[in-house]
Amino acid sequence: MTLRSRDKHAKGMFMGLFSADIETMDDLFVHQLQDIYYAEHQILKALPQMIEKATEPQLKQAFQLHLKETENQVQRIKQVFQLRGAEAKGVDCPAIDGIIEEADDVADEIPDKDVLDAALAAAAQAVEHYEIARYGTLIAWAKELGRADCASLLEKNLEEEKAADKKLTEIAESGLNSKAAV
Amino acid sequence: MTLRSRDKHAKGMFMGLFSADIETMDDLFVHQLQDIYYAEHQILKALPQMIEKATEPQLKQAFQLHLKETENQVQRIKQVFQLRGAEAKGVDCPAIDGIIEEADDVADEIPDKDVLDAALAAAAQAVEHYEIARYGTLIAWAKELGRADCASLLEKNLEEEKAADKKLTEIAESGLNSKAAV
Repeated sequence: MTLRSRDKHAKGMFMGLFSADIETMDDLFVHQLQDIYYAEHQILKALPQMIEKATEPQLKQAFQLHLKETENQVQRIKQVFQLRGAEAKGVDCPAIDGIIEEADDVADEIPDKDVLDAALAAAAQAVEHYEIARYGTLIAWAKELGRADCASLLEKNLEEEKAADKKLTEIAESGLNSKAAV
Repeated sequence: MTLRSRDKHAKGMFMGLFSADIETMDDLFVHQLQDIYYAEHQILKALPQMIEKATEPQLKQAFQLHLKETENQVQRIKQVFQLRGAEAKGVDCPAIDGIIEEADDVADEIPDKDVLDAALAAAAQAVEHYEIARYGTLIAWAKELGRADCASLLEKNLEEEKAADKKLTEIAESGLNSKAAV
């Protein structure tokens, strides 16, 4: 945070706005980092329910693996905050809240376990794609800001998200969807 | 809609639930189609504001082109509804509402036009990725349900979303981000 934006932030807090203006690219980077930090925490909360709802062993296993990966991803984001000298904290992310809310709404409407599996895989892919978009942006901004160290950590998260998305496509297309379509 | 699910739907309406259970893969396909139909309409509403907020000519132009594309995409979704013999209507999609809300929230906090451009491009890429995930799923499900005709229309939308996302990456990396980082 620049001195100028720190002043602005302090002013915002004083005025009770609880939201600092984003003045520089660096502020925007930190804001986006806070957004994905919050998002990963929401995903950590949502995944155990998805594991419970899933029936197909491969899908259940993929969710279990991704839960472990997400825990590591949160640690990497913490390291990026540390490298930046910023406090690791989240900001509200209506996007991930909406994606998870939608996944819950749809799952609640599906009594058939095979159709539910297909819907769960699709919901997880919507989550993955949100993260792929956000990490892609964060990496580009980190590089632009001369922070190859931050970019490198975020690239690990991006690669895991891409691999998780690909794995879900494979699972869906290798039997999950056809079982659901019967 | 199968006869069984039509009965269920009628029962749901009678009971004032306003929400049919999703019993079959076909129901799930139609539900997802209603979701993306609603999402594309929300994007049609959001894009003119993004065009207005954008400063960089290439970014403005990309948004303008995507507005035209989105209009065509809505027409293609209508054709898919028609092929399926289902009414073209939307269902609430908290995911796209959240993604757009987040874009608005962030944009409102950015006074600098270059930083705002970078944030707008990133927000648009989050939208594109939501659509890429959804169209990918819809195409896989359409094929599984033996509806190559529906899949083919949806593939055109998917290709446009992927191209729009790629174009935004090019614009961001060919000067937009570096101007914002100054």
